[in-house]
Amino acid sequence: MTAVKDIGRFFNPRNIAIVGASKTPGKIGHEIVRNICLSGFEGGIFPVNPNANSILGLKCFKTLRDIPSEVDLALIVVPAELVEKIVQDCVDKHVPAAIIITSGFSESGHKELEDRILAIARSKLRIVGPNTFGIYYAKSKMNATFGPSKVLEGKTAFITQSGALGLALMDWTTEEKYGISSIVSIGNKSDVDDADLVEFFADDSSTKCLLIYMEGLKNGRNFFEASKRAVIKKPIVVIKAGRSARGAQAASSHTGSIAGQDTIFNAAFEQAGIMRAEEMTQAFDWMQAINENPVPRGEDLAIVTNGGGIGVLATDKCSELGLKLMDLPDDLKEELKECLPSFGSIRNPIDMTANADDVLYGKVLGILAKRKEVDGIIALFCQTANIDPMLVAQVIMTIRDQERLTKPLTCAFIGGHLSQLAYSRMLEKKFAAYPTAERAVDAMYALIARYRLLNSLELG
Amino acid sequence: MTAVKDIGRFFNPRNIAIVGASKTPGKIGHEIVRNICLSGFEGGIFPVNPNANSILGLKCFKTLRDIPSEVDLALIVVPAELVEKIVQDCVDKHVPAAIIITSGFSESGHKELEDRILAIARSKLRIVGPNTFGIYYAKSKMNATFGPSKVLEGKTAFITQSGALGLALMDWTTEEKYGISSIVSIGNKSDVDDADLVEFFADDSSTKCLLIYMEGLKNGRNFFEASKRAVIKKPIVVIKAGRSARGAQAASSHTGSIAGQDTIFNAAFEQAGIMRAEEMTQAFDWMQAINENPVPRGEDLAIVTNGGGIGVLATDKCSELGLKLMDLPDDLKEELKECLPSFGSIRNPIDMTANADDVLYGKVLGILAKRKEVDGIIALFCQTANIDPMLVAQVIMTIRDQERLTKPLTCAFIGGHLSQLAYSRMLEKKFAAYPTAERAVDAMYALIARYRLLNSLELG
Repeated sequence: MTAVKDIGRFFNPRNIAIVGASKTPGKIGHEIVRNICLSGFEGGIFPVNPNANSILGLKCFKTLRDIPSEVDLALIVVPAELVEKIVQDCVDKHVPAAIIITSGFSESGHKELEDRILAIARSKLRIVGPNTFGIYYAKSKMNATFGPSKVLEGKTAFITQSGALGLALMDWTTEEKYGISSIVSIGNKSDVDDADLVEFFADDSSTKCLLIYMEGLKNGRNFFEASKRAVIKKPIVVIKAGRSARGAQAASSHTGSIAGQDTIFNAAFEQAGIMRAEEMTQAFDWMQAINENPVPRGEDLAIVTNGGGIGVLATDKCSELGLKLMDLPDDLKEELKECLPSFGSIRNPIDMTANADDVLYGKVLGILAKRKEVDGIIALFCQTANIDPMLVAQVIMTIRDQERLTKPLTCAFIGGHLSQLAYSRMLEKKFAAYPTAERAVDAMYALIARYRLLNSLELG
Repeated sequence: MTAVKDIGRFFNPRNIAIVGASKTPGKIGHEIVRNICLSGFEGGIFPVNPNANSILGLKCFKTLRDIPSEVDLALIVVPAELVEKIVQDCVDKHVPAAIIITSGFSESGHKELEDRILAIARSKLRIVGPNTFGIYYAKSKMNATFGPSKVLEGKTAFITQSGALGLALMDWTTEEKYGISSIVSIGNKSDVDDADLVEFFADDSSTKCLLIYMEGLKNGRNFFEASKRAVIKKPIVVIKAGRSARGAQAASSHTGSIAGQDTIFNAAFEQAGIMRAEEMTQAFDWMQAINENPVPRGEDLAIVTNGGGIGVLATDKCSELGLKLMDLPDDLKEELKECLPSFGSIRNPIDMTANADDVLYGKVLGILAKRKEVDGIIALFCQTANIDPMLVAQVIMTIRDQERLTKPLTCAFIGGHLSQLAYSRMLEKKFAAYPTAERAVDAMYALIARYRLLNSLELG
């Protein structure tokens, strides 16, 4: 028997067995079967439970052995003391991949139990977990989790070491219209770890960006080497918790992780070309910008605004992040002068003043879109009494989609209900839109960081 | 004639004249009259326009002089070249307060025009503006702005040097359920400035907290002295734009402000006991926490969570902000141990694990609420499949309102639609609730900062 290395079967199984499937709604062994069915998975679904004939209309099998075909992926939801036996069954049946949902292993002091399972599986069966909520993978229409049934498809793969946070964010990415291409609850990382997943997603055509929530790493070297190769193809954003001494202590009592010294992690992230986000909102803001924009071809940015105040705040944020507001060339200034009211500003930020309507936004953005000197545009809109933010949103969408914008654009809609509708509409239509000027600037920062990384790799 | 110093008439006028009132919907001179009517202002409303007999059903006067009673507050919406004449009319009629909405003065290079107006008004008439969108003051049911008609009443007074930002945020505070007690668009600050307003709001019973968006100060000394006195009574939060050199340049072309050296501002803010927020969202988060909570009696904080991961992130954020997660006393640990599942953590953060339901939240929060050693509580909830976030929200509300919580509590609901409903409900019910753990921690930071300030004043 050859060693199983490929972890593709976790994502593209021809069929799935759920060992410990249950007839009782609310139980994990029931919810997982239900989610797999609801997500539209097209392969075989085999519930395994010695005490049931059928679950959710699916024929139920007494044991793995009784399933009359090969099994690609086993989900294990039985009590901890039975897991060892089931893993042996998987090996006996030549199952290449198992997700052990069950908890009660190394995370709660029972490392010997986890080691015994690994000894059985070693080189024959790859394991995700134990202590995970499962895997969602949009391309296979497979929601093999006990999380939300409704998940919005997107371009970001999310690897999470925290179960509760992962489940909450699954829901959140749907509500906020970000979407995900995959989520992997990586659990105790007894076998499959961040490095394996980085390698897989680096070559996954449905994923444009990777997000990892990490408390600790078992094999740092593997991870950083895999990441160095992967970031050439797509960005990796990491939230590394346990930054502080007290946080590291909390991480240790949470997942048993050794958080390690934060400065060392910082240096390693930077060396590998990994972007480190401070908070989840920031991570998703960055990814939205990267997923929905081309990489800029330089660092010369222009800000367009109808509010002087947010123009100033955005400028401050640019300075804080080391972003360059370009000095506009004279002929561009002349061109802008012709459109702008006399009390507007043709400096950068370009302040069209509060009278600016969608037509003026269209004109000015159109001019900047065509200019080769401008590498990226940050468009800011303060809600005023005389114009519906949706009209401005529409103008921006037209410029990108019909006039084929070839440079990145991030935008912010500041205001009440109408602004939120406009900004939400832009998220639906796959734009990097935000509710504050600072977040629109920070999103542009992610794009510039990506440009700098690729540039340095090319030069290096 | 004695000098008019008091600016109370701007907020509590017995009647208002609108000079330059218009019959045409959409025009500023129309929208202001409309907003004053819609807001339920109970005093006299006198539109002034030589070419109209009535506006929105109100009798219209040819000139200020023709109004058959004293006038407390004049709103001036006539073209810039006519403002001088109207200001003279105000003085002649002994009007004590005028808001000059009209722009086209020092902000666009016409300082001499502004100076002439000041010379006429000096010591007889106080002026807000020119170049403002007006004043809203909830207690007087007076929306004398051309901004949104619908404004939610709250506890924060907002002074803004930026018009567009102020208007956008008026809408935003309603949508986000923060509310405001007042908003003053301070415009060019030709006469009434931040210092006057700080003095007024310090003694205003309807205001619990002051927020100032500032690009520059004309008379720093006055402002900092007024603030030093005011912060004993209520917190002042400032957003000072123009932090960076480039931002200062943008501020200068926006409001003609000299932004000044940022490090000097920082030192002065700190010395005056002013809290400086980096962004609007942060400012409102802080104020929500301060408005809806008692000041803590010490710095010992406890975090309660159902997700280990967000517990770690919150701990990191506490460390970053210099907040103290207390070591729980042994008898408290024992008490917690009895409620928590065996794999939970009775360290701080107290991790009740993903199985925690509303009953367990109630028990644990109830225990912490009763403990004198605990000065503040941060309650975190990750949305899980088995419990409705609204139930957890309900439990927290019960503990505060029925069990009379005497210490501050901030909370976060992380998840999708149901979490947002729960968190939104808590905002409605006047709780310091947030959508991320980091924001709930930062909100607690504002309370601790307030504690430290008051403590230092007492000691000093």
